[in-house]
Amino acid sequence: MIRLSLIGIGTGNPDHLTRAAIRTMNEADMILLPRKGAAKSDLIDLRRAICAEVLTGGTRIVEFDMPTRADQPAYVEAVIDWHDAIAAIWMKQIAVHLPNGGTLALLVWGDPSLYDSSLRIAERLGPKVEIRVVPGITSIQALTAAHGICLNRLADPVLVTTGRQLREQSWPPGVRDVVVMLDGHCAFQTLEPEGIEIWWGAYLGMEQQALAQGPLAIAGPEIVKRRAALRQRHGWIMDVYLLRLT
Amino acid sequence: MIRLSLIGIGTGNPDHLTRAAIRTMNEADMILLPRKGAAKSDLIDLRRAICAEVLTGGTRIVEFDMPTRADQPAYVEAVIDWHDAIAAIWMKQIAVHLPNGGTLALLVWGDPSLYDSSLRIAERLGPKVEIRVVPGITSIQALTAAHGICLNRLADPVLVTTGRQLREQSWPPGVRDVVVMLDGHCAFQTLEPEGIEIWWGAYLGMEQQALAQGPLAIAGPEIVKRRAALRQRHGWIMDVYLLRLT
Repeated sequence: MIRLSLIGIGTGNPDHLTRAAIRTMNEADMILLPRKGAAKSDLIDLRRAICAEVLTGGTRIVEFDMPTRADQPAYVEAVIDWHDAIAAIWMKQIAVHLPNGGTLALLVWGDPSLYDSSLRIAERLGPKVEIRVVPGITSIQALTAAHGICLNRLADPVLVTTGRQLREQSWPPGVRDVVVMLDGHCAFQTLEPEGIEIWWGAYLGMEQQALAQGPLAIAGPEIVKRRAALRQRHGWIMDVYLLRLT
Repeated sequence: MIRLSLIGIGTGNPDHLTRAAIRTMNEADMILLPRKGAAKSDLIDLRRAICAEVLTGGTRIVEFDMPTRADQPAYVEAVIDWHDAIAAIWMKQIAVHLPNGGTLALLVWGDPSLYDSSLRIAERLGPKVEIRVVPGITSIQALTAAHGICLNRLADPVLVTTGRQLREQSWPPGVRDVVVMLDGHCAFQTLEPEGIEIWWGAYLGMEQQALAQGPLAIAGPEIVKRRAALRQRHGWIMDVYLLRLT
């Protein structure tokens, strides 16, 4: 029997860890850490640092190389193939390191339920693997906390969407407040900026945290420039933003 | 100078507390706990238990009686009056207990940015009060973790809305996945249930946690009954659910 714990660890700040996350990490026999190539080496370093800071017992840390996703136009199909490849690697690591069963943990940025693939990959492992989820602080909460703002307006709904959706569908119907995640290309540039305000954050909770806020017409172009410079400097960037019709 | 820390504490499970939440609680000179009447006395007991479990130093705990919200048809106006009344009580507590300044903390269910009033009330305290937000696990994350599901479908958006909105507006346009919060009256009953699945949770993360899942046509009426029985038994209920077009 294998138990797989998917542990939300927040956005890179060890202080985002919950007591449940720390306990579950320590109860695991093994933590699998993905290596994502040199450009994102800060990210595995952060996970290593988090392990070093909170592990007190004999949990073994095993690293593996993440396969790369095919850069093909059929986005959803490419993602499905990629998830299959990752699941095969996890199975191999389990066979090698936990041949007699045990508890495996994965550290997930943010929360395992929100725009993260771990649960979908884990479902491919079959019925012998029991999955447990430990919730974590999402980048949305880190964004609103850093700006000191509410996500929703009084009694109003909020849409959580992706850069791809915003680019392809423009402003979504029926909402005044939209959070955009997974946006590598500043999709807000495709909107008519009049009457829209933006709250943006990158590397939220980390030392290099960057924030910007203002009318989209003014703040938007500044964010595009700043984002490119930050990405160049650090080799990677993770960011999120809230758009609000004023 | 007064610093006010709004600390997200998750949904009642002390293991939802983050390291930042525990540190900020211990750094505070005073924690204000609201009493909400006998029916909700479990809730202040939970907050008291959390304080007892994690406070190690000299943080003082002060309790105050929450004013009740006028039950008038003009919902937004009633809420604004209520927030004014709460802000006045906070100011009085600050004047009495922190006449020379210091750090005050409030423990917020879930996260201070999501369908919580603390930030809006805190803004009424004026420029002499510096506000800091510590993010916490929301009931949405506790719901998806308990069910072991993703919130979003691959590359798809998710709407976060309220029972009131769902009741007044029916199924929102342009989305297939909707989280409903602040729903005291099972607003899903107003929907045509064919083709909708529900994942429901109450008292998430607490000992009395209750979960249900299934096609809305079957699970919906069961949830209505179960919710009424649970509310009767405990004197209060906090729940949240995800609706998904299949």
